[in-house]
Amino acid sequence: MIQRNKEWRNSMRLKLDINNMMEKIIGKNGFTDTELVNMKMQATEAFQFVEDNRGKGMMEWTNLPNNQDAVVKDILSTAKEVRKKFKYFVILGIGGSALGPYALFKALCHLHHNELPASKRKAPKFYVEDNIDPERMNALLDIIEPEKTCFNIITKSGTTSETMAQFLIIYDVLSKLLGDKASENIIATTDSSKGALLKLAQKYQYKTFYIDSGVGGRFSLLSPVGLFPAAVLGLDIKGFLQGAEYLDNTYRKPHLYKNPALLAATLQYMAEKKGKNINVLMPYADGLKYFSDWYAQLWAESLGKNKKLDGSSCSPVGQTPVKALGVTDQHSQVQLYVDGPNDKVITFLTVQDFRSFCLIPRCNLNIAEINFLEGQSLNELIQAEQHATEYALFKVGRQNMTITLPQVNEFTLGELIYFFELQTAYMGALLEIDTYNQPGVEEGKVATFALMGKFGYEDKRHELANIKKDIRYVVE
Amino acid sequence: MIQRNKEWRNSMRLKLDINNMMEKIIGKNGFTDTELVNMKMQATEAFQFVEDNRGKGMMEWTNLPNNQDAVVKDILSTAKEVRKKFKYFVILGIGGSALGPYALFKALCHLHHNELPASKRKAPKFYVEDNIDPERMNALLDIIEPEKTCFNIITKSGTTSETMAQFLIIYDVLSKLLGDKASENIIATTDSSKGALLKLAQKYQYKTFYIDSGVGGRFSLLSPVGLFPAAVLGLDIKGFLQGAEYLDNTYRKPHLYKNPALLAATLQYMAEKKGKNINVLMPYADGLKYFSDWYAQLWAESLGKNKKLDGSSCSPVGQTPVKALGVTDQHSQVQLYVDGPNDKVITFLTVQDFRSFCLIPRCNLNIAEINFLEGQSLNELIQAEQHATEYALFKVGRQNMTITLPQVNEFTLGELIYFFELQTAYMGALLEIDTYNQPGVEEGKVATFALMGKFGYEDKRHELANIKKDIRYVVE
Repeated sequence: MIQRNKEWRNSMRLKLDINNMMEKIIGKNGFTDTELVNMKMQATEAFQFVEDNRGKGMMEWTNLPNNQDAVVKDILSTAKEVRKKFKYFVILGIGGSALGPYALFKALCHLHHNELPASKRKAPKFYVEDNIDPERMNALLDIIEPEKTCFNIITKSGTTSETMAQFLIIYDVLSKLLGDKASENIIATTDSSKGALLKLAQKYQYKTFYIDSGVGGRFSLLSPVGLFPAAVLGLDIKGFLQGAEYLDNTYRKPHLYKNPALLAATLQYMAEKKGKNINVLMPYADGLKYFSDWYAQLWAESLGKNKKLDGSSCSPVGQTPVKALGVTDQHSQVQLYVDGPNDKVITFLTVQDFRSFCLIPRCNLNIAEINFLEGQSLNELIQAEQHATEYALFKVGRQNMTITLPQVNEFTLGELIYFFELQTAYMGALLEIDTYNQPGVEEGKVATFALMGKFGYEDKRHELANIKKDIRYVVE
Repeated sequence: MIQRNKEWRNSMRLKLDINNMMEKIIGKNGFTDTELVNMKMQATEAFQFVEDNRGKGMMEWTNLPNNQDAVVKDILSTAKEVRKKFKYFVILGIGGSALGPYALFKALCHLHHNELPASKRKAPKFYVEDNIDPERMNALLDIIEPEKTCFNIITKSGTTSETMAQFLIIYDVLSKLLGDKASENIIATTDSSKGALLKLAQKYQYKTFYIDSGVGGRFSLLSPVGLFPAAVLGLDIKGFLQGAEYLDNTYRKPHLYKNPALLAATLQYMAEKKGKNINVLMPYADGLKYFSDWYAQLWAESLGKNKKLDGSSCSPVGQTPVKALGVTDQHSQVQLYVDGPNDKVITFLTVQDFRSFCLIPRCNLNIAEINFLEGQSLNELIQAEQHATEYALFKVGRQNMTITLPQVNEFTLGELIYFFELQTAYMGALLEIDTYNQPGVEEGKVATFALMGKFGYEDKRHELANIKKDIRYVVE
């Protein structure tokens, strides 16, 4: 385990640079200092609202860095067994049960983990099945050996249709192969008090990890949802929790310039009010690409609302998160970001020190256009391109900010996770909406039940069957 | 090869359903028939503009379905050798040189292609390296054997910094391993008349495929850029071209209801005019997930502009493309789409017949919440969820349309590629901008050259070094 003394922790602190959000730097499209100062009271209130609700209701996620000593112990010993016993590890889950664990996997394991020989891999092959495409499920079964696979079924509610459909398929496969011993290949992660998965786990004695009732799916990454798969991969799970705690302790202040999550939330709030309905997260590191997926759910599902906290209607709010990857998407999206409508805020996510170095060798090819690259490194090039893109946006007065991680490791990712969770909580408080519900998905769920013939949904089925379409509007 | 007689082709025709764009169906947020009729003249003009420019200037991509007989022959014989000789196939490229080939790979090969045993794979392991992250390049070198790898270097301009940096690294590795024979492991795909890669290809006698000068990177998927890698994977490349040709022949008419690409472009244009600045593409099939990446470049880079075709300034235009995946992102984005701001058009991409079937077995678990799933199939469930999501959006009057592919195969993907290319061309014509340039990326390129110390960019380097930031705006 890494030494994490005080100096080391301070050297791992994330940094937020908001220069390119401000009028003083980028000109008239930026915010003035006065505008920001005028937000002081609202920001303080948002901070206080989050403080007052910490650890309560659906804000139990704030407890996760501190209340899991026993859970961590259990996770580590279970993970040790899983690593010894199984060749493959498969998560069945969707949304908050899938995006986070996959983000950690891609950020901290070898980018071609599953293709490494076992001796170099040092952990089971790892798959996250977060869809119900029949081709994908069959493709998975083509490459794993189910009897040598540990399946981690993750669903907070314990009733998610997609996850439980996957479960039924795997239950059947394992039962046929292993009979009563099938239970040894299944580990459940679910709510401690309710749901179909909990009932099944009790009936078949599955090893089970619990998600606290007050921890919603999209805020559950630092619970066993993320920690157990990470431990199976051999990651230092205490590092995540310590990073989160460090971020929280360092910045838990009602002052904009002392609390970067509050500052970032306030700037996004101001930007949204000014019509910037698009929120781009653009990491410059392949390992962080899938972090954007986790962030996109957190931001979209928490903040896309049309009701105030008291239930009264309001104008719909919620920026649309967009995932981009530097430098790749410079060749795909930056033309639009520079010359297109001024409707977005771009947040760069940069890494100071990459974990490896790649020289661009001196090949002496003597081709004028590319001579300048020889003898430099990909490390320099990727940094230069990030600065160049930031500069191009600055030149045309497009708002952007940059979060820098000194390195990518468990500790800094713990900071980053907690930073984004806090930012989302503060943004929800500023918007005065309920950050933790998702009423808008109910109608679709009910319609799925109806279409699949679930008992009790006959009326909805009838309604759906009677929607009239106009065949003129179908072109084929 | 599949039989592709007339009946079969007609049965493979894609379908566009715009019911949920219209007021008659979704109420006041939809377009009236009158509004659409009023667009008739503009749409006809856009159609005519595209007709007039076919095959000219940067619209040579319209020739690709018909002018490649000799190229296809060369591709097929080269691919045959590559398949025999090499264990790995690596594309070095970025943007239009990477997104398309990767989309075809994911759509038509096994979803875990690289993890299949060689006997089942029947093609080299396949990698597309479209970033310059040092960790990624090193990770690739950990898992391939360079001497058994064919590297396809793809860059239209022949000078793309990222691709040429990757090239230098690989050139060095291969030269050390193979000496003069290194050339046999390298295949270039580039412009036929200019660029560093062309010079190198001539000097070292690399096998080379050419991209016509009038085919831009993001419109090059049906050129050797996409066809050669597809052929190496064993895909039926004539199928792509025939599908594209079929779509073109079937719908090349100046009438909205007889030309789905023109209809879709017109509706997006009307939507953008009404403030819908976000364009979501949401395939309900894992294999089509990366098709959205290709589409996102096509849409963003072609249409994100602030100048008219004649060079005069105009208000910035360009919807921001958003990639979503059904059903996965129902648990991530749909809350926002339903309850959030009415600022987007969602295009579903659905598949009528999946290539495989996956039963949800009857396990008789007797758990009330999930009983309804037993005995059904993932095929039914994914379709039901797509309908349910469409319904949920319909209920709240959010505009959406659906493109349905009868199956996913080379022919239907050829149709789809050409559909989106035409839609983009029509949209550009409606917006009266230059669909084929990308002036907005120039500033970033120049800044990168300056930061990397390229000769002749000293002034820019000086300018960059003198940008003053305010340290108050950096929080750490």
